[in-house]
Amino acid sequence: MATGVRRRMGVEERRRQLIGVALELFSHRSPDEVSIDEIAAAAGISRPLVYHYFPGKLSLYEAALKRAAEDLAERFEEPREGPLGARLLRVMGRFFDFVDEHGPGFSALMRGGPAVGSSATNALIDSVRQAAYVQILAHLGIVSPSPRLELVVRSWISLAESTALIWLDGRRIPRGELELQLVHDFAALAAVSAAYDSEMAALLRHLLSGEPVDGPFAELIGRLSGLVAA
Amino acid sequence: MATGVRRRMGVEERRRQLIGVALELFSHRSPDEVSIDEIAAAAGISRPLVYHYFPGKLSLYEAALKRAAEDLAERFEEPREGPLGARLLRVMGRFFDFVDEHGPGFSALMRGGPAVGSSATNALIDSVRQAAYVQILAHLGIVSPSPRLELVVRSWISLAESTALIWLDGRRIPRGELELQLVHDFAALAAVSAAYDSEMAALLRHLLSGEPVDGPFAELIGRLSGLVAA
Repeated sequence: MATGVRRRMGVEERRRQLIGVALELFSHRSPDEVSIDEIAAAAGISRPLVYHYFPGKLSLYEAALKRAAEDLAERFEEPREGPLGARLLRVMGRFFDFVDEHGPGFSALMRGGPAVGSSATNALIDSVRQAAYVQILAHLGIVSPSPRLELVVRSWISLAESTALIWLDGRRIPRGELELQLVHDFAALAAVSAAYDSEMAALLRHLLSGEPVDGPFAELIGRLSGLVAA
Repeated sequence: MATGVRRRMGVEERRRQLIGVALELFSHRSPDEVSIDEIAAAAGISRPLVYHYFPGKLSLYEAALKRAAEDLAERFEEPREGPLGARLLRVMGRFFDFVDEHGPGFSALMRGGPAVGSSATNALIDSVRQAAYVQILAHLGIVSPSPRLELVVRSWISLAESTALIWLDGRRIPRGELELQLVHDFAALAAVSAAYDSEMAALLRHLLSGEPVDGPFAELIGRLSGLVAA
């Protein structure tokens, strides 16, 4: 053996290593710019051995995406205690941590990377969106959402995705500001929808009633009041 | 000739006809459920003749998508006169007309259809988003947008896409309500962003100052005032 000290890894251990190496490389460059040769070199093994564990680049890409999706979904989990605005703000912090860590990989995936359009990739992206949706409903204490609430939550999730993508393109706005802005956006979209729907209005009143005077939702109300008065 | 009356079409005329037939079929079913045989039958020509004009289903799909993209981009054009809220509301009406007409084709495309992930398809989708972005900036009278204004406009465009997709999935909310809601959402997202950015705040004041008391933005302000007071 060339390295002399390389020990044999089990199949699962080697697969985990290759996924980790791939994700590390995808965090700096778009997956379609990263070759199997580079992944092999970074893992310290030969190119044919990579193909032994993953039959092609697509299967390694999908396995890496699966691990990243599980990682992201875990970050949505937040204890169901304390004001809702603060909970959502903490989740936004962890979401931007993820986006920050996976920059080019996240962009390539959401903008249409090499495996995008494959049914496995689309199903994974949808599973993460669904995990976010389920978490938000649980925090709101809602079991059977109305169509308007479902729309607010799902469309806000897509707003969070696009906000993160636009942020990655140049990082011209401080991410802490965008994390708070997305919390405010949620309240603003809910407020717009509440105009049409008594259930939404009741939910919004409940949500705001539990907010501390120094919480992110109260801050938004203060700002909107100033705007309306002006 | 079997039909006896079929006249010969020129190449471009035949290509246009096949694109029209494909778009008509894609408006009822997802493109991946529509076969070249069906397109040939609906156009009254043989399957090999379809392949004479389009070398494969993907090239016909991309040509159909290109025409649909041009059609949609044209609907964004709106005279630059009168209150901004009313202009945006008219554009939303035409956007939902398009979404309504192209239902399954639009869903398949945006959710990941057969040609999604191809660079040609992604470039077309991006060109439509860019056309929407350019139109909105022109109506706002802005030549060099700040990063926060760019974020508001681009993220609102993605919100409009996701709202339309969620609407198509069951049509459980009247579309007229969603057209107005998206106009309100634009103002709401701008208002949230205005809290961070004096340029956004100035733009928002300018935008609201030109609104009639019965316009959609004034309606939103009234509703938010009620909400803030409650």
